[in-house]
Amino acid sequence: MKPMKSIPAILEDARSSARSLATSSESQRNAALGSIARSLEASADSILAANSADLAAAREAGLSPALLDRLSLDSSRIAGIVRSVQEVASLPDPLGQSQPLGKRPNGLRVQRLRIPLGVLAVIYEARPNVTVEAACLAIKSGNAIVLRGGREAMESNRALVGAVRAGLAAAGLPQSCVQWIEDPSRERVVELLGAVGQVDLAIPRGGAELMKLVDACARVPVIRHGQGITHVFLDQDADPSMAAEIVFNSKVQRPGVCNALETLLIHRDLVANGTWAAIADRLVRSAKVELRVDEVAAGALAGPAIPHRLAQPSDWDTEFLSLTLAVRTVASLDEALSHIAEHGTRHTASIVTGNREHAERFLREVDASCVLWNASTRFNDGGELGLGSEMGISTTKIHAFGPMGLRELTTEKYVVYGTGQVRQ
Amino acid sequence: MKPMKSIPAILEDARSSARSLATSSESQRNAALGSIARSLEASADSILAANSADLAAAREAGLSPALLDRLSLDSSRIAGIVRSVQEVASLPDPLGQSQPLGKRPNGLRVQRLRIPLGVLAVIYEARPNVTVEAACLAIKSGNAIVLRGGREAMESNRALVGAVRAGLAAAGLPQSCVQWIEDPSRERVVELLGAVGQVDLAIPRGGAELMKLVDACARVPVIRHGQGITHVFLDQDADPSMAAEIVFNSKVQRPGVCNALETLLIHRDLVANGTWAAIADRLVRSAKVELRVDEVAAGALAGPAIPHRLAQPSDWDTEFLSLTLAVRTVASLDEALSHIAEHGTRHTASIVTGNREHAERFLREVDASCVLWNASTRFNDGGELGLGSEMGISTTKIHAFGPMGLRELTTEKYVVYGTGQVRQ
Repeated sequence: MKPMKSIPAILEDARSSARSLATSSESQRNAALGSIARSLEASADSILAANSADLAAAREAGLSPALLDRLSLDSSRIAGIVRSVQEVASLPDPLGQSQPLGKRPNGLRVQRLRIPLGVLAVIYEARPNVTVEAACLAIKSGNAIVLRGGREAMESNRALVGAVRAGLAAAGLPQSCVQWIEDPSRERVVELLGAVGQVDLAIPRGGAELMKLVDACARVPVIRHGQGITHVFLDQDADPSMAAEIVFNSKVQRPGVCNALETLLIHRDLVANGTWAAIADRLVRSAKVELRVDEVAAGALAGPAIPHRLAQPSDWDTEFLSLTLAVRTVASLDEALSHIAEHGTRHTASIVTGNREHAERFLREVDASCVLWNASTRFNDGGELGLGSEMGISTTKIHAFGPMGLRELTTEKYVVYGTGQVRQ
Repeated sequence: MKPMKSIPAILEDARSSARSLATSSESQRNAALGSIARSLEASADSILAANSADLAAAREAGLSPALLDRLSLDSSRIAGIVRSVQEVASLPDPLGQSQPLGKRPNGLRVQRLRIPLGVLAVIYEARPNVTVEAACLAIKSGNAIVLRGGREAMESNRALVGAVRAGLAAAGLPQSCVQWIEDPSRERVVELLGAVGQVDLAIPRGGAELMKLVDACARVPVIRHGQGITHVFLDQDADPSMAAEIVFNSKVQRPGVCNALETLLIHRDLVANGTWAAIADRLVRSAKVELRVDEVAAGALAGPAIPHRLAQPSDWDTEFLSLTLAVRTVASLDEALSHIAEHGTRHTASIVTGNREHAERFLREVDASCVLWNASTRFNDGGELGLGSEMGISTTKIHAFGPMGLRELTTEKYVVYGTGQVRQ
């Protein structure tokens, strides 16, 4: 077994390949993505074998069914990964666009030029498809990338990274654009997050524990893909059946992801008029949702005997990522806005209302990367918003707020054309 | 004497005022800037008195003439500060612009909306004009700001912040949008840089020592306005008199700032043909520049007896901020590019050449926030590039790279209009 590469060595290789990637042409980068897609197809059997080994170990370690599902690959999921590579290849080139800022009175011509960031570091959890998608978004945007996936996916990631690097080599781009950290220990993450000057952007994707580590250790620029304490507010004037559909979809369609609903805020009139009981009944009967509700909301569930428990204060700050829903009644839009300001994580919030004035206040005042009116929270997603593939959803306000696509993996520099000008 | 406010109390006040500032109108914010300008004019005498006290203390402490000059105010500098406030007021509103991203197949309408970042923290050094300019850029862009200036400017800053807050109050905006940290101890900076969730963006402006503190302590998002190891490369085909003008201006016009030239790279042919000796002669005779040169460059200075000393390796990594210039000869464009890649701080680099192909490679390949062809490095400045007033020059690649103006003090959120859509 050859010794594992150190983080400084990994970053040095990434840095030098970033320089050559930054000057590669669009057609080279697209050709590399094409050969990566073919390489993944050709390696499908060995990727599935590696994934089986991960799954066996994960079952032995007692991982939850939800985590096992995230981890597992089959031939249809591999086909999905291949398709995602082809989709990234077909997106417009994010690099090289120049925006002229005009000619200055002294004759200088000024423009902004879109360039790669340099070296990205992505720290993520079990899903092996992220390995390929993140690598391909990096290649397309001219960045080198260092991947640090969850230890549960170790063998799957080894196989996937091998296939990606074989594709790069076949297209004549340096394999070292895509670096993979084999050592799953926490110390390597700490080293990576501390590599000032070597990592241009770290993207941690994960829950509260990873974010705590980032708080403690990150010295490099970070865009967090942090937890989503996602809210829906059903206003006084909400259409009852639209409200029920949006709540059901936001909570149930895919409960384990960051844009799934966690806390439902309901105007108390909807409790009084029976709308809430009907929504609750459907959530519990059709999807076995566990309701954690305040006393007012509980009052409406006693008669129809809809199962529920009383919410604890900590529920307002919990990302359940499961079929659990916290429910709180409010007396007004203002109370809903205050609750979200206090407990939201700047991720996603939706208002269901027929009142345009209320909707506009909500859309303006809620501090979240995506605010919606009469739509499911599940639409806070790069593909759904029409932005193409994404690296995830940023909850950091600078640089990228919300879905982080190719544009957000680049930056701009100023390019100035003179004829000998000096400053007076 | 009333007790100083704690950092958590300061940040809580800033946060709550940020919420009301975010929903203020453009005309309110401009009115506030107008009344700040009037308030500064009305307080000129007390500001000058406070500044005299700072200067007396600074002289006693033995500050260098350059630092004393940065610190000192007079009535013409106050008029300049008032003018800068009026200029910020006259800039277009950076907020509220919405960029439609079109209608999705399911009927959702998606747009991006430009919003403030929230709470800014600016950590800077002696110049008191920064206090007012940073506060006004924050107000214009709808952000609350926490200011932490150098201890040398304590009394000047107290008077300036007083005048700014009086102006805010006169215009009916909360005074607590502009917070000032009175306690000059390093511990308060550490607290500020660690206030995760309370500071949306910290902007440290300063030299290597401040950046070291940022490396060690920052947990909040940071855009560094770090040191500029700024390069000019005189290529083989450089016009000799243009080369001389650009080098002289880049180094001498204002040596104490971040876009001033620090290391000159010269193609060796310009040493052989006498161009270098002529440039050196002018730098030394007209501006008493101290030259630290490599052996090849030294060879050309012995004959005409131009004073110089040999460069040490550390000179390639030094931001002199004074009339000292490091000089290195190179054999090719590639050698110049490698030197800049190794020693540059991603700030500013200029090439002087008649060779378009070389210029284009340099502009493309140098990783710096501003790259120039046949122009002085001193043009890497918001005003000079036509962007209006700026918070400084960012050397961080994400969010803002180069001059950081009003646009870079904002971000965008996604706003989605639905009619009951749910995700399939």
